[in-house]
Amino acid sequence: MSLRVQKYGGTSVADIERISNVADRVQKAHDAGDQVVVVLSAMAGVTDKLIALASQASGSPDKRELDVLLATGEQTTASLLAMMLKSRGYKAKSFLGYQAGIHTDHMSGKARILDIDSKRLKTALDEGHIVVMAGFQGYNDDGDITTLGRGGSDTSAVAIAASLKADVCEIFTDVDGVYTTDPRICADARKISTISYEEMLEMAILGAKVLQIRSVEFAKKYNVPVHVRSSFNEEEGTMVINESADMESAIVSGVTCDMNEARITLKRVPDQPGVSAKIFGPLAEAEIMVDMIIQNTRSEGETDLTFTVTKDDFERAKEISEVVAKEIGAGEIKTATEIAKVSVIGLGMKSHSGVAAIMFKALASENINIRLISTSEIRISCVILSKYAELAVRTLHSAFGLDKE
Amino acid sequence: MSLRVQKYGGTSVADIERISNVADRVQKAHDAGDQVVVVLSAMAGVTDKLIALASQASGSPDKRELDVLLATGEQTTASLLAMMLKSRGYKAKSFLGYQAGIHTDHMSGKARILDIDSKRLKTALDEGHIVVMAGFQGYNDDGDITTLGRGGSDTSAVAIAASLKADVCEIFTDVDGVYTTDPRICADARKISTISYEEMLEMAILGAKVLQIRSVEFAKKYNVPVHVRSSFNEEEGTMVINESADMESAIVSGVTCDMNEARITLKRVPDQPGVSAKIFGPLAEAEIMVDMIIQNTRSEGETDLTFTVTKDDFERAKEISEVVAKEIGAGEIKTATEIAKVSVIGLGMKSHSGVAAIMFKALASENINIRLISTSEIRISCVILSKYAELAVRTLHSAFGLDKE
Repeated sequence: MSLRVQKYGGTSVADIERISNVADRVQKAHDAGDQVVVVLSAMAGVTDKLIALASQASGSPDKRELDVLLATGEQTTASLLAMMLKSRGYKAKSFLGYQAGIHTDHMSGKARILDIDSKRLKTALDEGHIVVMAGFQGYNDDGDITTLGRGGSDTSAVAIAASLKADVCEIFTDVDGVYTTDPRICADARKISTISYEEMLEMAILGAKVLQIRSVEFAKKYNVPVHVRSSFNEEEGTMVINESADMESAIVSGVTCDMNEARITLKRVPDQPGVSAKIFGPLAEAEIMVDMIIQNTRSEGETDLTFTVTKDDFERAKEISEVVAKEIGAGEIKTATEIAKVSVIGLGMKSHSGVAAIMFKALASENINIRLISTSEIRISCVILSKYAELAVRTLHSAFGLDKE
Repeated sequence: MSLRVQKYGGTSVADIERISNVADRVQKAHDAGDQVVVVLSAMAGVTDKLIALASQASGSPDKRELDVLLATGEQTTASLLAMMLKSRGYKAKSFLGYQAGIHTDHMSGKARILDIDSKRLKTALDEGHIVVMAGFQGYNDDGDITTLGRGGSDTSAVAIAASLKADVCEIFTDVDGVYTTDPRICADARKISTISYEEMLEMAILGAKVLQIRSVEFAKKYNVPVHVRSSFNEEEGTMVINESADMESAIVSGVTCDMNEARITLKRVPDQPGVSAKIFGPLAEAEIMVDMIIQNTRSEGETDLTFTVTKDDFERAKEISEVVAKEIGAGEIKTATEIAKVSVIGLGMKSHSGVAAIMFKALASENINIRLISTSEIRISCVILSKYAELAVRTLHSAFGLDKE
């Protein structure tokens, strides 16, 4: 007998018929002798509808109250599935965040799980119940409802799997698994059968569609095997697991493309100690996340400083940069929004040299100019003009042999 | 500074605009220097929609899970009002049943409040918050969500008013108050300015439209002044309070008419000890509520036994009666469904004789035949043919001078 946590996303519980399909699948796992904890999202579209309702009630809805409102979405699906399973003759019980012991900090809207008291769930499982847990929600020290942010149900599932020491955490979604790249861009994209937590984290852009990044961090921390698979078929999906000695380490496992960044360059920045702090301090205060930072020496005592932010933050970041540029006596500001960041990711990179060379050569062969480069231990990213984005992805996918089994 | 509990029903919070009207009213009370606890129902129609959803999920939805589902309705309105008040610059906080300390028994779907720990609400009030409480819900010893049954938000409001020793519990609804009779039947019906708990309980039929009966029992037990009034205007409604020495005791305060009963008569019941138990035992086991019971001696050793049940229970009650009649050797069974029960109610009845005489005479003057009579200390009820119902109400309303100030 193994213990399986199964998480179903919004499209998998979009209406009564689909919830009924979920019940079929849960039933099957239970009939096979496994203990099952089901973690549910709200019906697809419901969270957005609730947010729209809140914004009718208030221009900037109070975060504590918004969490109380949003939590109704998962409360609805959890109770519906539990009553469905009960009417099929199974022992089943729903648990909301506070009932499941999901204890979080006070950050309404993007709370982090501090610890889990899974006593009630354990008792229910021991009594033979199928446990149906509302995802996305927890409670804080004040006994208030908190929510975990977009995609938070993934984190709920992985966290409860860690707490219960589940054998696997299955994330059922509307795609078959994690692909070597976005199949909408590259027809040759292949499903990855096994991937490490580290690679999955670097493949945030690919992963974001199927798995909340925070859930992967959680899985990595507590070593929870995560199986990303489709709720619409029986096929094996992608196993996200710890890097192991016998894991076949592809040099490059995937290619990602992020079109959501914009570039800001401050020209002729005085090359003095503390100048970086003067630039990035105000951005941090404005809660603007800076992704890449590149500094080129231009001439004696002056540098050009380039960084990227998300398109959402671009206008605010530009305004702040203009103020700072005047203060520190820098030159003009140049910006670009029509850019794309293409990345190749792979654990094998650690032990194989030459990955960068292959990447640059492949892009050059298509006359794609590289504007910025950044690297991590298992990732190389290049910023290019966005009009070349798809071409670059297809070129790199093929250059690293990802189109072949 | 006084402490006011204000309860708003489903039609008063039916959409964002109406919730905004509620916010106006709450704001006004708070600006006047009062502490305010708001108790909300779900948006009109939402509870029915959720029940429909549940019945799609399961033929007979599990009661525990149904409560989890239904509780989302009040959770939604409470969070919306709280965020609206906050965006207007007020300190406000929503509280769900378990957060408000509404401790109930385990009867899912019709739970009874056992006790209330209003510590959190008191603290919030002391901190200057407007407290917004989700009505209709509580929690049991297992930490499960329970609901209090149809109209349960009235009981939530009165109970929290009792616990907090509020100065008044205002029940805002879509009618102006309690009337001397149903204004749709009798154009001369007048709003009652003050009525005792006892009369209100007897006027269940009139009251049911504006006040859950259980809430009146609660108010009576804890001596909570209840003000039933319209959420659509500023007029004073009806005060429901304890009978007091200086209360002007109208002989008759109101006339009610209940069309929802049916009559069953067992003819020639052997007049032996224990025969009543044989008849009413099986009805009680089937959870059928019997209202009136009348026994007429027919002849030596035999009686006719008549009782009334609600129309919903009529068919089942008839079947049971037929079985019992055979067992005890009674005669045929006669039934009537086209009946109405008209009642006159008034505290003054206790000290004035002759009310029955006036009632019977008034009905006789219109040639309305009385089929059954039953009385309580402050009520006289007559069962008549339903085709005379409206005529009887108007006749009695006028006979007791209720059409005059």
